[in-house]
Amino acid sequence: MNRAFDLKTLTINGERLWSSLMDMAKIGATPKGGVKRIALTAEDKAGRDQFVGWCKAQGLAITLDTMGNIFARRPGTDAALAPVMSGSHLDTQPSGGRFDGCYGVMAALEVCRTLDDYGIKTRHPIEVAVWTNEEGSRFTPVMEGSAAFVGQFTVEFARTQKDVDGITMGDALDAIGYAGTAPCGFPVAAYFEAHIEQGPVLENAGMVIGVVSGGLGQRWFDVTLAGMEAHAGPTPMHLRRDALQGAVKIIEAIDTMGRSHPDTRGTVGHMRVEPNSRNVIPGTVHFSVDLRAPTDELLAGLVAQFHAVAEAQCSQRKLTLAIKETVYYPPTPFAPECKDAVRAAAQRFGYPHMELVSGAGHDAICLATRCPAGMIFVPCKDGISHNEIEDAKPEHLTAGCNVLLHAMLDRAGVV
Amino acid sequence: MNRAFDLKTLTINGERLWSSLMDMAKIGATPKGGVKRIALTAEDKAGRDQFVGWCKAQGLAITLDTMGNIFARRPGTDAALAPVMSGSHLDTQPSGGRFDGCYGVMAALEVCRTLDDYGIKTRHPIEVAVWTNEEGSRFTPVMEGSAAFVGQFTVEFARTQKDVDGITMGDALDAIGYAGTAPCGFPVAAYFEAHIEQGPVLENAGMVIGVVSGGLGQRWFDVTLAGMEAHAGPTPMHLRRDALQGAVKIIEAIDTMGRSHPDTRGTVGHMRVEPNSRNVIPGTVHFSVDLRAPTDELLAGLVAQFHAVAEAQCSQRKLTLAIKETVYYPPTPFAPECKDAVRAAAQRFGYPHMELVSGAGHDAICLATRCPAGMIFVPCKDGISHNEIEDAKPEHLTAGCNVLLHAMLDRAGVV
Repeated sequence: MNRAFDLKTLTINGERLWSSLMDMAKIGATPKGGVKRIALTAEDKAGRDQFVGWCKAQGLAITLDTMGNIFARRPGTDAALAPVMSGSHLDTQPSGGRFDGCYGVMAALEVCRTLDDYGIKTRHPIEVAVWTNEEGSRFTPVMEGSAAFVGQFTVEFARTQKDVDGITMGDALDAIGYAGTAPCGFPVAAYFEAHIEQGPVLENAGMVIGVVSGGLGQRWFDVTLAGMEAHAGPTPMHLRRDALQGAVKIIEAIDTMGRSHPDTRGTVGHMRVEPNSRNVIPGTVHFSVDLRAPTDELLAGLVAQFHAVAEAQCSQRKLTLAIKETVYYPPTPFAPECKDAVRAAAQRFGYPHMELVSGAGHDAICLATRCPAGMIFVPCKDGISHNEIEDAKPEHLTAGCNVLLHAMLDRAGVV
Repeated sequence: MNRAFDLKTLTINGERLWSSLMDMAKIGATPKGGVKRIALTAEDKAGRDQFVGWCKAQGLAITLDTMGNIFARRPGTDAALAPVMSGSHLDTQPSGGRFDGCYGVMAALEVCRTLDDYGIKTRHPIEVAVWTNEEGSRFTPVMEGSAAFVGQFTVEFARTQKDVDGITMGDALDAIGYAGTAPCGFPVAAYFEAHIEQGPVLENAGMVIGVVSGGLGQRWFDVTLAGMEAHAGPTPMHLRRDALQGAVKIIEAIDTMGRSHPDTRGTVGHMRVEPNSRNVIPGTVHFSVDLRAPTDELLAGLVAQFHAVAEAQCSQRKLTLAIKETVYYPPTPFAPECKDAVRAAAQRFGYPHMELVSGAGHDAICLATRCPAGMIFVPCKDGISHNEIEDAKPEHLTAGCNVLLHAMLDRAGVV
């Protein structure tokens, strides 16, 4: 086919993408420049309405599934083929930013708009997805819509989860009118997701595009050490059973373990000391442990080290130890064909790019358990996310969307 | 003088002492067997009324000073001499025990009762003291009555301090009718205080009497470390500025410093992590540091080490550091003649005894800044105090009171 443009260097409309992002950011806008659009609230409904309005204006066919996931389809030339899908989420953290999630949805919509601008036909349908409750701020689990889509739990289970006010997810979904009738889950040919990095790696390395290799496996624990509460003054050091002194040795070891491999992480983010009085030796300390690694073998090694250090410390200091595993997400490598498509697109435009791992969870990591998936990261200012000051540069967002366009075309096939 | 008893082996009435302790423990008794008799409340008034009633029945002359300190005097043969005094406090912690403070007051009263039983006359007057608000649970500072008595601050200052409900100490004192007219502070020939140890040293060593060498100096600090709050997943270890990881190294060093000398202590009792979310790298950590030592030289050495470790950690991890000193109590050695009197009395009865330092503050430590002072410690179960399960053995309380009797007679002179 002869075209009036060069398909290989086709670019999206960066100004339109930015304008859509800024329009969406008005819904739930906070005084500090962030966004509060918590899942299944009036703001979430307004955001969904805005998105559906834009899709209808673009002639995309809307489907709602029973989890409230929204799909906007641009037909392919072969109706028998599963769609090449891209999207993310519109819900935010309570003090969220303008780009986390929203960028992936707006970028996928911009791909459809660009294809329409140039009258490009694809073999596979192109489909934009908005996943319900990715953040998990109001209802658990996180990544709820995409996790249900890939069958990690049933829609019935999800609908019974309650928020802090006792409202079920099902009732909240019905109330905003986004409980659809389509079954949750169907074949997908390939899934891509564009997202701000939410970390400092790209910015530090001066890169524009992150070719995401997959999602780190995660194992989370609740730890409790109990010793003997006692007066700080009258209790000599050798007669103490100080739970905090045992805890600090373990916390230090968690950090050291995280440094054992470039892609492992060890974090203690939560800590509670009892009785927490300045002149009383701590009797009990609770803290969280969050270990992440790119393979199950590495992850199991970290967990074994953590247990060994904790047991040794507690035995030495006569403390009791309780460890409870609260979360296990297996490591999820992305499909080579999706990574290659992302890398090739970045190379074509000459964007500085690097391969990196996703330390956080994303809808794409759920999708990757059922279909070939990939992600495109773009830098965010100072690596900050889940914060009203979250920021990203328009030129980086445009670059990420150009990469998304070409990666999707690679998998969907241009007729 | 010929006596019908041997003065050298005179003993107090242990059953009467125990009975008075148990009667006093009924005032503010808690369901778990402890006592809640917070300073200047209705319970404190009831406890004071009971004490004054017993003193009047014994023929002791009551004086109330402007701080609400109560003095009950048994005259000596030489009215020109300052009294040999003993006492402690009747107020308790919110979840206090039956012996902390109360034992020192009841033991001093039992000394007077015993002297009356045997018709013993002393050269110096013998005086029982009840100090206002030793615990500091409701009004600050701690050891308020005895600290004002020795001139650490004025009565006017003390009366303006407010509790959490905004009630001033002066109004609370007036309300229970214990604001006296006698000036706060007068000469004391010697001061002794019997007290449960509130620590585990005597029990561990199988001792009955602690000959207290003095009070440890104390320096307390509030520490704040600030780094960069960030996502635990996407932030590689080498790009983190984790305030908790800096804090744990300092906290560990505080414990090590405490172990550098048998009588030094290093404690972190309070800690607050922000934002305290399991998958967020801590941006800010606040914690307390409590350093104690028997000499100012040792104490200054610990403080210098603490500053050096904190500065090195924060510089290495790119954290900001703020250290604020909140308390400084200088080390307070007790008078050799008082220690000797206590030791001699313990030897006379063959009580297993040892010299030890007081890690906690006591009214005797305030008094020691103005007059010769000494303390007698007796064991408490598991070293536990400031707790409803605080416990002590009647035979140990009797032994401590026998030692108090003879130490006081040593300084007061028997006619």
